[in-house]
Order: sequence, then structure tokens, then C-alpha cells
Amino acid sequence: MDALYSCNPTIVSSASPPIPLAAAWARSFSPTPSRPLLNLAQGVPGAPPPQQLLDRLAHCTADPETTKYGALEGDDPLRVALADDVVRTYGTLQGAHPVGKDDVVITAGCNLAFYATMLALAQPGDQVILPTPWYFNHAMTLEQLAISLVPLPCPAPTFLPSPSRCAQLVTPRTRAIVLVSPNNPTGAIYPPELLREFAALARENKVALVLDETYRDFVDGRPHGLFAETAWREYLVHLFSFSKSYALPGHRLGALVASHSLLTQVSKLLDCLQICPARPAQRALAWAVDGTRPWREGTRRELEARQRVFREGVEGVEGWEVVTGGAYFAYVKHPFGSSPSQLVAARLASLAGVVVLPGSFFSPRLPGDDAAQDDRYLRFSIANVDETTLRLVPDRLRQLSELWPSLSPSLGDEA
Amino acid sequence: MDALYSCNPTIVSSASPPIPLAAAWARSFSPTPSRPLLNLAQGVPGAPPPQQLLDRLAHCTADPETTKYGALEGDDPLRVALADDVVRTYGTLQGAHPVGKDDVVITAGCNLAFYATMLALAQPGDQVILPTPWYFNHAMTLEQLAISLVPLPCPAPTFLPSPSRCAQLVTPRTRAIVLVSPNNPTGAIYPPELLREFAALARENKVALVLDETYRDFVDGRPHGLFAETAWREYLVHLFSFSKSYALPGHRLGALVASHSLLTQVSKLLDCLQICPARPAQRALAWAVDGTRPWREGTRRELEARQRVFREGVEGVEGWEVVTGGAYFAYVKHPFGSSPSQLVAARLASLAGVVVLPGSFFSPRLPGDDAAQDDRYLRFSIANVDETTLRLVPDRLRQLSELWPSLSPSLGDEA
Repeated sequence: MDALYSCNPTIVSSASPPIPLAAAWARSFSPTPSRPLLNLAQGVPGAPPPQQLLDRLAHCTADPETTKYGALEGDDPLRVALADDVVRTYGTLQGAHPVGKDDVVITAGCNLAFYATMLALAQPGDQVILPTPWYFNHAMTLEQLAISLVPLPCPAPTFLPSPSRCAQLVTPRTRAIVLVSPNNPTGAIYPPELLREFAALARENKVALVLDETYRDFVDGRPHGLFAETAWREYLVHLFSFSKSYALPGHRLGALVASHSLLTQVSKLLDCLQICPARPAQRALAWAVDGTRPWREGTRRELEARQRVFREGVEGVEGWEVVTGGAYFAYVKHPFGSSPSQLVAARLASLAGVVVLPGSFFSPRLPGDDAAQDDRYLRFSIANVDETTLRLVPDRLRQLSELWPSLSPSLGDEA
Repeated sequence: MDALYSCNPTIVSSASPPIPLAAAWARSFSPTPSRPLLNLAQGVPGAPPPQQLLDRLAHCTADPETTKYGALEGDDPLRVALADDVVRTYGTLQGAHPVGKDDVVITAGCNLAFYATMLALAQPGDQVILPTPWYFNHAMTLEQLAISLVPLPCPAPTFLPSPSRCAQLVTPRTRAIVLVSPNNPTGAIYPPELLREFAALARENKVALVLDETYRDFVDGRPHGLFAETAWREYLVHLFSFSKSYALPGHRLGALVASHSLLTQVSKLLDCLQICPARPAQRALAWAVDGTRPWREGTRRELEARQRVFREGVEGVEGWEVVTGGAYFAYVKHPFGSSPSQLVAARLASLAGVVVLPGSFFSPRLPGDDAAQDDRYLRFSIANVDETTLRLVPDRLRQLSELWPSLSPSLGDEA
């Protein structure tokens, strides 16, 4: 007995979430105490938040005040804390109008911030430029909203987008250019000068530059200087997630920093999408932005160490190559030539117990485009596990390489 | 310095959230200890959740497990608990396929459930039938998604929608009929037989019947028998909010019960909109669905008592009339003839310290339609305050009535 009514054909024909498929691969492996499953698929914090933050979260949750509705733009103490953090992270603005709380809106996760931003900027049929490989939820969002996705291929080995190639893609229907740095899935860190070139391109063409910096806190130094210039409100839409920096994705909080005119439209959308973001974690995070700096600094150093350990380990396995890496992710070239990355990922999970995402998850699905390049790659989320566990990965890769010649060359049931 | 880029004209021309306007009216009143502000505007629980639930919430938040991502459809224990609650509330199905966890998806609030449902059902230009007066976030959502809103006027004094009038509005582009019972804003409770007629209409025309039952737990008895028939999945989309029943809107949890084919599409949307709902409250609520039944029953009786107290109080004030009422809301006819409800609401707040929402907030904004009827009304959310506070309302209404003849007949600055 199923529905007599039919659904929106745009949504029916749109892509399904890929993470559950990786979860199914994970279930196909039988772990043993000496051969555990290594899940490097979804980008998730490998350790809980610090005990002090957990205590604050519980304390704020026990207060009946946080069971009430809050402001639709988020609670002021967190907006103030995040605005101060932006000033601290990106440099102090000389002159008037530094980033303040009125430039900030808190959302129920960074995905929702992206969804609201796209809805606020583009109508069905408008165009948004997305570098490929892309973060799949960005591509899915555009598909769901019938916004035309214009892929900007980022070639190996740097996976950096080219401003001049991007300029050729801009048309009168272009509404935004979306960049993610540090990048998901490649881990590539976009240099400040490159971001400055994209800023100039966005201003010149009067389109928004949507810059998702979810993984910003895991890289040392100032990510870019755009916020330190008065012109940032003319073009910049900054997206941030509290999930990764503060290790609490289960609380679902993100943020958006942008011009007053965009936030006015976004607020209308958020009134219908979220009413307000969940409140207990907002209150705890207002403290945590300053209160957990040393812990976040430690996490950053740990991830940098993991990147080194991972790279060195994989370099010792014949045929496998870490092409880019930074913050949470490493983008790894597999040695199985034209075998589809989805087949490689399925077998790596079921036969060697390492769950990763295939490059094809981050690529255009249409024939005739750049999917072929990304099919040579796998995304490893090295943030998920500790260094000791990460050291188990190279042997597993070696095991799959040894098994590979005996396996059927066709797709089979695994993918 | 503002944006050089422009925003989506559909969103730019769409309505702004009305609650902040009511908040501005509230600020225009100077309360004193003997004359406090009575805020009956936004529908909010007047008392915190029971201490046992607060304790559980804090306990679940302290567990680092709940800082992690969860399942995108929500966590199984809460889905199971809600499915069981549906069976208990609406009657046991004779035969196969009673409501189970796979029929349930948990969302970051009931507004998000509505947003995802509309996106999953309708494309821009498709039609959705909405009884008027409506819940403003429903109308805003349709406007934002460029879905054509077809108003179904519900005449005073019952404010019940007519199935035969609705049938005349159905076209080949109709994708859904949306009903809210108990109603927001009128408080009208739709009889089971009326809902059965709408169910037949929806099945016959192969459109979805979206039934928002956010205020269900505040009315005694079985709301309807639709879930007790095997055919419910053919047409019914049930929306529920945990915010009101469990007094925790700040935690943002709602739910959607529908066919497998709708939930498949909704899940794609939720992967981009929420990734997963916030987790600590999900765990606490899995207990609270059964664990707080006596408390919820007590709240229901309390609200029924408040409805009586309010009605009796207002009946004693000349010219004012409680036309409908149930669960959270009462819809009250003001005595100021053709004065716009927004002017009446602004003055009631600034001069008499009672904040309510004007009927115009729940009405079509286009000229030539039924706004005139709703401009005679104000929505009082009687759930917000206790019985003692509620008893202060009649005197305040009397004060405004006495002042009214001395006030300018024009709109002025107040609204």
C-alpha cells in the first residue's frame, strides 16, 4: 500500500544521499578484535569535545530557559562570540564596520546555511558555479532547487580552481561561485592570493562568492585577508560549521556571515526552516569560542600530525598515492587504473575493512564530463580515528592490492 | 557598504516573519509590577517541561555519544516511540501494516517537516490548497518555493473548511491539501467526519492530504480514525511537533508520518537540510513519549480550564467575542468595526500591555480576497500564561475599549 499521489519530479530524479551506501559497505565487513573496521568515510570528529564543554552543554540543557524559543537569527551571545572570532581569525579591519553580530546568523547546521543561501540567491534555472570534485550536499542542494550547476573542473595534482577558467563560465544568469577551503573532498587549502582573485572576479561580475570554511580551524595561520577589507560585504558569503571545530555535529549548529541585504532574505527563509537554532548548544558555544581555544589548537596540531603519518604510511604502499591533503581529508589515487572508484571503495570496505568514499561521489553524474578524473581517487577522512588506528591503514591497502588480480574485473554486487 | 550581487526576486518580494513585529509592539509598552506585560502572541508553552524530562535532557547531553552525527531519518528509539504513540492515539489497525518506525521521520522542528514535504510534493507553479485563516509559516513556505497558494476560505463562526468548496478548487496542478487541526490560528477542532471527507477527496483526486496535528495532545479523545485504516499511506501526510506537547521548542524537534514513497524523497531533502536532527533531545524524548503521559494529561486539562476561564472573562467585556477556541489558541472578534486588526493589535500592546497577533497575519495579502473577514479578529495564545495571569486580560480589553473613541482613526505609527 503506497501513495496514490505523485512527488515532485525534480526531487524524484535527484541523487540519493551517499553516506548510507558507505554504511552498507561497512556492514559487509566482518571485524575481529585483531582486525577492526576502520571507518574513514563520513567526515566526523574522532574524539569527543573537551569535558569542560560537555559539562557546560549539560548545564545549559538543565536550565529551563533553553527549552524556550530563541531569536530566529540565533542568540546574541553566540553571534557576538563568532563575530569576535572572525575578527581575530582573519585580521582586524582598519576603519569602520568590522564584522559584528549583525553580520552573523546562526543556523541549524552549515548545510542549512548553504540551503538558505542558495534559495536566497538563485531562482530555478539560475546558475551557480561549483568547483569539482565538490561536496556532494552542495550539488544535491542545487539539484533539488532546480538551480543549474555549472562545474568548474579542478585538475590534479593541486585540485585548485582556476579564476580565469571560472571567468569563462560566468554568464548573466550566474548568481554565485561556491568555494570550499580547506576543501572537502580533496583537502586542498586555497592560498589567500587565489581567494583574492576569486573575490575580484565576484565583485567585477556582481555575483556572490560563497566561501565554506568548515575546516578552517584545522589549518595554521590566517586563511585569507578578505574580512580585513571594508569591501567584503559587497560579495562575500562566509559559511561556518561548529560541528567540526567543536566536535559536536550531533548538536547541529552552523553560521553564515554576509551582507545585511542577504541576511534579510535568509532570515525570511530561516523563519520557515528552523524558527530558531537549537538553544542549549548555542549558549554553551558562546563560552566555548574563547573557552576552548587551547583544546582546538591541540586538535589542529593532532590533525597535522595525522596528515603526516597517513602520507608517510601510504607512500610505503606500491601504487597508492596521497595527492592532496589538509585538515580533515586526504585525496588518494588508487592503483587500479580504470576500475570505477565505487568498486574500489566497496572492495576496500568489504575485503580490507577500510571504509572511504569514492571520487565518483564528488563528481558530476552526467556522461561526457569530468567524472573520469575523479574515478581515480578515494577520499579518506583521517580525522575520524586516532594516530594508532591510522597506522593500520597502509597494511589494509596492501592487502587489497594483493587480492585485486584475483578479483573479477566487473562491478558485481559489491557496488 | 552592502552587497553588489542581487537576491532571488521570489524571496525579496516574499513576506517577512511577523513575530518580530509583535515583539516590537511588546517593547512599546512600559510594564509596572502592578501592570505587567501579558504576552499572548507567539504560541509558546507557558510552563517548562517536567523536572524529570529536564534531568533526562541534561543527562543525555552529558553523554559524548549524543555529540555525534545520527541517522538522517532520526534515531530509531524515538521513531519507534512515536510510531507506538500514533497507534495508541489514533486506534489500532485491524490487519497488516500498523504504523511503524519506517513510516516516521524525525525533523529539526515541524516547520522543517512542512518545508521538506512541500518541496517533495510540488514544483514551482504547482498548486497547494490552504484553508484561510492559515498558519503564516505555511503560507510563507509556499511563497518562498514559488508554489501557487490556493486559499480555501473558512467562514466564521466555525472556521471549518468545506470539502465541497475545496473540491471546486482542485485542478490537475493541485499537489496537496493542507489542514491544521486543532487549528492555528482559530483553535477550531476539525471533527473526525470532516477529516474523513477530506481524506476521500484527497484519494479521489490523488493528491496528498497534509495534516498538521501540532496541538493534538491538548484535546481529549481520538482526533480521527484515519490511521486505523490500511489506506492511510495512499494519501495522508501527518505532521507533528514535539515543541508544544513536551514544552521544549528550543530543542527543535518535529516529525512526519507518511508513505514510503514520500519519505524516500523527503530523506534526500533532509540530508541537505538537517543531516540529522539534534540528538540529545531525541534520546530524552524516546523516554518522554511514554514517561510523561500523566504530565501531558495534566497540561491538557489545564489548557481546557484556561479556555473556559478566558471565554468567560472575555464574555464579560462588551463588544469582545471569543468566536472559536481550542488547544493553544482562541480567535477573538474585536469591537472596532472596520479598524484594521494590525492597528488594534498594536494599540492593545502599547496601550493595554496585551500582545496578540492580528487576523491579518493569517490572511491572504492580495487585494480583493478574504482579508476583510480576518481583519475583524485577533489570535490569543492562551497557552503562554497561567490561569491567574489570564484573568487579567478582560480588564485590559475593557481599558482599550474605553480609550478607543479618543484615538485617531488612522493607522499612525503604531502598526
